[in-house]
Amino acid sequence: MNVEDLHKRLTSAMAGRYLSSKDVTGIDPLSRTDIELIMDCTRVFKLEFIPSGEKKLPLLQGRSIINFFFEPSTRTRTSFELAGKALGADTINISADSSSMNKKNETLNDTARTLNAMHADCITLRHSSAGTPMMIARMIKAAVINAGDGMHEHPTQALLDLYTIIEKRGRAEGLDVVIVGDILHSRVAGSLIRILRKFNANIRLAAPPTMLPAYVERFGVKTYHDFDEAIAGADVVYALRVQLERSAAAFIPTLREYSKRFCVNMARLRQAAEDAIVMHPGPINREVDLSSEVMESRQSVVEEQVTNGLAVRLALLSLLIRPREDLAKQTRLTGRG
Amino acid sequence: MNVEDLHKRLTSAMAGRYLSSKDVTGIDPLSRTDIELIMDCTRVFKLEFIPSGEKKLPLLQGRSIINFFFEPSTRTRTSFELAGKALGADTINISADSSSMNKKNETLNDTARTLNAMHADCITLRHSSAGTPMMIARMIKAAVINAGDGMHEHPTQALLDLYTIIEKRGRAEGLDVVIVGDILHSRVAGSLIRILRKFNANIRLAAPPTMLPAYVERFGVKTYHDFDEAIAGADVVYALRVQLERSAAAFIPTLREYSKRFCVNMARLRQAAEDAIVMHPGPINREVDLSSEVMESRQSVVEEQVTNGLAVRLALLSLLIRPREDLAKQTRLTGRG
Amino acid sequence: MNVEDLHKRLTSAMAGRYLSSKDVTGIDPLSRTDIELIMDCTRVFKLEFIPSGEKKLPLLQGRSIINFFFEPSTRTRTSFELAGKALGADTINISADSSSMNKKNETLNDTARTLNAMHADCITLRHSSAGTPMMIARMIKAAVINAGDGMHEHPTQALLDLYTIIEKRGRAEGLDVVIVGDILHSRVAGSLIRILRKFNANIRLAAPPTMLPAYVERFGVKTYHDFDEAIAGADVVYALRVQLERSAAAFIPTLREYSKRFCVNMARLRQAAEDAIVMHPGPINREVDLSSEVMESRQSVVEEQVTNGLAVRLALLSLLIRPREDLAKQTRLTGRG
Repeated sequence: MNVEDLHKRLTSAMAGRYLSSKDVTGIDPLSRTDIELIMDCTRVFKLEFIPSGEKKLPLLQGRSIINFFFEPSTRTRTSFELAGKALGADTINISADSSSMNKKNETLNDTARTLNAMHADCITLRHSSAGTPMMIARMIKAAVINAGDGMHEHPTQALLDLYTIIEKRGRAEGLDVVIVGDILHSRVAGSLIRILRKFNANIRLAAPPTMLPAYVERFGVKTYHDFDEAIAGADVVYALRVQLERSAAAFIPTLREYSKRFCVNMARLRQAAEDAIVMHPGPINREVDLSSEVMESRQSVVEEQVTNGLAVRLALLSLLIRPREDLAKQTRLTGRG
Repeated sequence: MNVEDLHKRLTSAMAGRYLSSKDVTGIDPLSRTDIELIMDCTRVFKLEFIPSGEKKLPLLQGRSIINFFFEPSTRTRTSFELAGKALGADTINISADSSSMNKKNETLNDTARTLNAMHADCITLRHSSAGTPMMIARMIKAAVINAGDGMHEHPTQALLDLYTIIEKRGRAEGLDVVIVGDILHSRVAGSLIRILRKFNANIRLAAPPTMLPAYVERFGVKTYHDFDEAIAGADVVYALRVQLERSAAAFIPTLREYSKRFCVNMARLRQAAEDAIVMHPGPINREVDLSSEVMESRQSVVEEQVTNGLAVRLALLSLLIRPREDLAKQTRLTGRG
Repeated sequence: MNVEDLHKRLTSAMAGRYLSSKDVTGIDPLSRTDIELIMDCTRVFKLEFIPSGEKKLPLLQGRSIINFFFEPSTRTRTSFELAGKALGADTINISADSSSMNKKNETLNDTARTLNAMHADCITLRHSSAGTPMMIARMIKAAVINAGDGMHEHPTQALLDLYTIIEKRGRAEGLDVVIVGDILHSRVAGSLIRILRKFNANIRLAAPPTMLPAYVERFGVKTYHDFDEAIAGADVVYALRVQLERSAAAFIPTLREYSKRFCVNMARLRQAAEDAIVMHPGPINREVDLSSEVMESRQSVVEEQVTNGLAVRLALLSLLIRPREDLAKQTRLTGRG
């Protein structure tokens, strides 16, 4: 499939459909229709663009994307950068380490105005404070994508996880999904729970009591302190990362004890559904989050998640930074400024 | 306006006119004619390119620009990077943090030769020692742009400030410009005073005695320790940044005392000319350099300065790294090697 | 010479010839035929592309190169980045400082899978542990280029050094090459000795006893503790960098003593062959590795090495990431997957 055909396929997937917001700041503000549009575009990128051997689909020629990361990241930033470049956009990285904005205590307010005045088309933003991307998004014309804000949301991770589940199991609805690990401090879990609820999956959370949010059952999820009980018959086993470098240690007696009770190993995986898939947002602590044996097993889809992350970001950038003629149409149709 | 028309407009603004040097290392070495050429090109970029919706004007296709920053910077580096990419150039960032050149105590002499041997077309350089860009410029074939050297010069900031003043007030000549803050340690003030003198503005400097250079009156500027006296009737109020992160504290009794006497607030602004504009190089210390109320007022042109910074850098890169056919002509006309 | 002609010249230099491996992880795995192919392509880039004024030869349009540096580097990383961009590829930098992979103790195994799942075409890798590039190369589909691994190999440096020697002296075979400095801890020396042996140069190593590997004479090199004896009649004088920032100090009595006995100065250089060339991998410690006078002399080819480094990397990237039609042919001819 050549570039022209890909362009047609993508245009057809997007035809007449627009996201309801100029930004993706979290899963909460996205409607089910929004997410279905993102899934449809992701599918074109995953199944037709990436395997085509064509490396460039210059939908965003001349557009500029600023990857603004106040926390270190390799995986997410590289994924956004590869996606932006594949679409022909210019990408610029600003990291907190090198950022004088950070060191100089500039208010986020002023940072947002500065980025706005530089006429970038899209800002991907990672920040340690929950809510920062929403605040910035309200103040600037550029599209804002939340690339992780504090312990709040990480919507592109949840979108790629949903895509992976649907790709592997045909649907999310009615599936039994067990999420295991430090739910309380995880923005990955925050966004994943939100998106799975929108798609009517049955959610089970397995964690030590110190790693579970209080009253979380009100959101229609089941909680377990016994992972063996939680995993029984599950269709999807989603292991979170124990944040060894953070204060996780404060919440669990010892790593050995945690691993003994919550590590996804082969014995436990056999209690899940026969065709259960194992997921992890990466990077993995082997023998803590997952055993190496599980990681190497045919049930692990961890590498596929990385490729799907590229596909989701290609889809989001295409949808949020549409070519000018499309944008004119969009404004006409929806009255967006 | 499409790319072809923009190219014609820009070529016409530049027609037969060349900067007198291959570098922009400071305001001092620029003639008034040089600065007028830069202003004319900046105007085309600001008024015709940026609002056109065209994001690329591939004047510098295949040229390479190295942004070599020995001090952290977000604003200036991002502005240069966006400008270079919009003109189709390849941009490469080297920061002091990651630079082994820095850590390995390589002499600047050898660094310059290395960059020269890599055949880059332009080096933008920020360095903590005054004079470094001039030294490097003499040693290499590539164009060098000083992006800030110690407490000496920051010429692209002064050029964007002059452009902003002319854009907003029609001219610089005869205007009363008050600069307030840490004049002594500010390269922004260093370059701004130089450029305003070339364009015959009336310059007033307001600062505590510890923040004013000695004998500065010899350069035809007026100095004030009382900001209220200095601001009366001013056409332009230019607030500098108190370098909280540096040793500024050593030069002022307390921040509260400084703010009380030198912060640009609404009460003070009312003493300036009715249509006075308020400028700041960013990032802003709110309630120290400027009050939030002033920042949000219609007299503040701080965001416009950021956009003009992009336009000035587009102009400078275009003038310094001209397409080959132009360069041949330039060499023929002026005998430059 | 225009882009089409350059493309033809390069295609002709490469015609029907392929590297025997998908990676360049060291000099050892390269055959003499591999190295001759690299030299031939380098020659086209050095003599025809770089001086042509054409800045782009879009052989790798749409391909993506990840520069993954776990140790700081300016020179090597910038050279790879310029080369990749000149060939039209997208380049992405990941540095250990900003890399959460590093901070999060992700296993290299998982890092490799992640890069693989992102479908990059080439990874250039610098790492403090010997052998890392080989390990990564075995695990991923992308081409891997070792940009320096611990004290083991730095093959692109050796390739540019060989090219420089052949360019300046017509051949390497039978030349007397003296390498002076910290041989024991130098990956530059490690790769240089390997490549010179493949091309039958006579190798003399001059260093204090603490900086010479044990039993190195078994590899057919001569060792000297007296540099004046070693340099007599040499055709090539290759000075290594004393790693002032590392623990070099532990291996030599004092820097002054080292310099007195091993610095390449004019008096010593006069003992070498009349047309001897002086080389250094940079960055230079003046008056320790080389005297300034030697550095400025017409016998120094240190700057030429930098330009040749760009040419070698242009050649390697072109050979390793061939356009798709070529790759199909390559697979057909050699059965590579």
